[in-house]
Amino acid sequence: MKEARVAVVGATGLVGREMLKVLEQRNFPLSNLDLLASERSRGKKLEFAGEELPVKVLGENSFSNIDIALFSAGASISREFAPIAAKAGAVVVDNSSAFRMESEVPLVVPEVNPGDISWHKGIIANPNCSTIQLVVVLYPLHQHFALERVVVTTFQAVSGTGRAAVEELKRQTREVNEGKTPTVEVYPHQIAFNVLPHIDTFLDNGYTREEMKMVNEAKKIIGLPELAITATTVRVPVFVGHSESVNAQFKKPVEPDDAQEVLSGAPGVEVLDDPFSNIYPMPIDCASKDYTYVGRIRKDFSTQNALNLWIVSDNLRKGGALNAVQIAELLVD
Amino acid sequence: MKEARVAVVGATGLVGREMLKVLEQRNFPLSNLDLLASERSRGKKLEFAGEELPVKVLGENSFSNIDIALFSAGASISREFAPIAAKAGAVVVDNSSAFRMESEVPLVVPEVNPGDISWHKGIIANPNCSTIQLVVVLYPLHQHFALERVVVTTFQAVSGTGRAAVEELKRQTREVNEGKTPTVEVYPHQIAFNVLPHIDTFLDNGYTREEMKMVNEAKKIIGLPELAITATTVRVPVFVGHSESVNAQFKKPVEPDDAQEVLSGAPGVEVLDDPFSNIYPMPIDCASKDYTYVGRIRKDFSTQNALNLWIVSDNLRKGGALNAVQIAELLVD
Repeated sequence: MKEARVAVVGATGLVGREMLKVLEQRNFPLSNLDLLASERSRGKKLEFAGEELPVKVLGENSFSNIDIALFSAGASISREFAPIAAKAGAVVVDNSSAFRMESEVPLVVPEVNPGDISWHKGIIANPNCSTIQLVVVLYPLHQHFALERVVVTTFQAVSGTGRAAVEELKRQTREVNEGKTPTVEVYPHQIAFNVLPHIDTFLDNGYTREEMKMVNEAKKIIGLPELAITATTVRVPVFVGHSESVNAQFKKPVEPDDAQEVLSGAPGVEVLDDPFSNIYPMPIDCASKDYTYVGRIRKDFSTQNALNLWIVSDNLRKGGALNAVQIAELLVD
Repeated sequence: MKEARVAVVGATGLVGREMLKVLEQRNFPLSNLDLLASERSRGKKLEFAGEELPVKVLGENSFSNIDIALFSAGASISREFAPIAAKAGAVVVDNSSAFRMESEVPLVVPEVNPGDISWHKGIIANPNCSTIQLVVVLYPLHQHFALERVVVTTFQAVSGTGRAAVEELKRQTREVNEGKTPTVEVYPHQIAFNVLPHIDTFLDNGYTREEMKMVNEAKKIIGLPELAITATTVRVPVFVGHSESVNAQFKKPVEPDDAQEVLSGAPGVEVLDDPFSNIYPMPIDCASKDYTYVGRIRKDFSTQNALNLWIVSDNLRKGGALNAVQIAELLVD
């Protein structure tokens, strides 16, 4: 196809709105754009390319004239409607966790495994935000130095939870500043001026679902089912931008300069690594940017062939909307 | 000695004030208490045990009648005045980084290496805040399972920088809430709603001084000069309480239950690890508490004999004031 009839499911959400921005900014070849959302958004309009587009209520018949359906409305909506959309002939790019680990569903980061879209059966999964920025940086290093083991700790922004969490951080910040006890609604504990080692729900093995998503999705995307990788995921009082402290061991010798050279030429990656000038990636600098930023690249003196890295990216953009639109671009190509 | 004549150098600072609280709360056997600070604090008074004590200006003659001098006024003040105090007959407990790595200076965490105070020559060093809470938890595990390698990432509160940084976070938070551009004075970049992978100054090896403090001090305190340990230290918009994501490998097999049992009986440690009830350590819960809290104890499936842990403690208290007063208690004993 040269132009595509696209539907955005969950258009009014944080990632949905970011998808509209990305489609517009990248001049995506659209022949039609349908904005779909739940009953609650009936009557709403959203701006796209200078026009006001009506939000339609998602239903079983929403996909009869759609080529590509970008889903970002949560796993239960995806579980219900993605198969309907696929059956109607659309290719679904699903941003939820619903299908990511299914063996018949490719899990794609265009900078890493673009070829995997070839074997889709109607649904292509968009990985978890914290996984995408990790593999965009680790994959080019893996190609050169062969990954051995990864230990990652994340610092994740509240926008990953959704708009209510953004409002909660704003409200709690105000309440603390006014000397009031912060009201807690979205998270199990106060997030303002605090950190929560708890993202998504806990599993019997002691890990959170978010931690296991990073572990399992990274293995699938990079194509290393036996990769040794462990994760600790932490929510921090930041609005936009996930940060990751990554310890990566390789099979081959690697020096920071080698890594920096590889990453400087890697797709989607920008190296920000001049610590003596106070230059390193930070959440406040990554918002609305397409890149995954990496810095603090240094030798881990505690073992052989290992590096420490600091990775930051806009979780709504490369971590969600942009990656999905890039997959859609591969489909149009 | 049964009672000690104590001086607190840097009494008006965040850690200095916390020292006064701790001395009072623990009923430290004082025969006299001198509060010392710079010229700027001349005329100030601080409350101690219901009395208003005058702050005296630090000088060369401040230590003629002092048994124990608790220093917390920065490395340059310690470099100048700690030798003077020691020469005058006081034992210095120094909270700065000035003497920590000197071979003639014991570096002491009372729960780990209390015996090391025996070989002091007038100066005993109090470790860096982020190191103390790390070794309080790792040492009992080391005794049982033999440490092999540690990868740690920190989430450090602004109070570790001092009062100006606390004010900066408050001010920037207000400015962001009011839609203004935050003014940046203490840190090189905005700290409100951001994270900075930058604590203390950068070294030629790519690490910060804070990161190398954790590495080198942990080796010295635990008494394992060859311990494999690497650190990434990060400032987060939290007022009080440092958090640490720790990946620890051991020489002997270890299960999370074993670790939990060992830590439940370890001095100064409290286990908070019931994730299904949303119980895990957090900065907002640790303020003004003496314990180092540990939770999220789980098996690292990526390698042999390894655990992930989440450690939180009040950086001003166990990370500074309390540890120094505990050392002073050992001296009085």
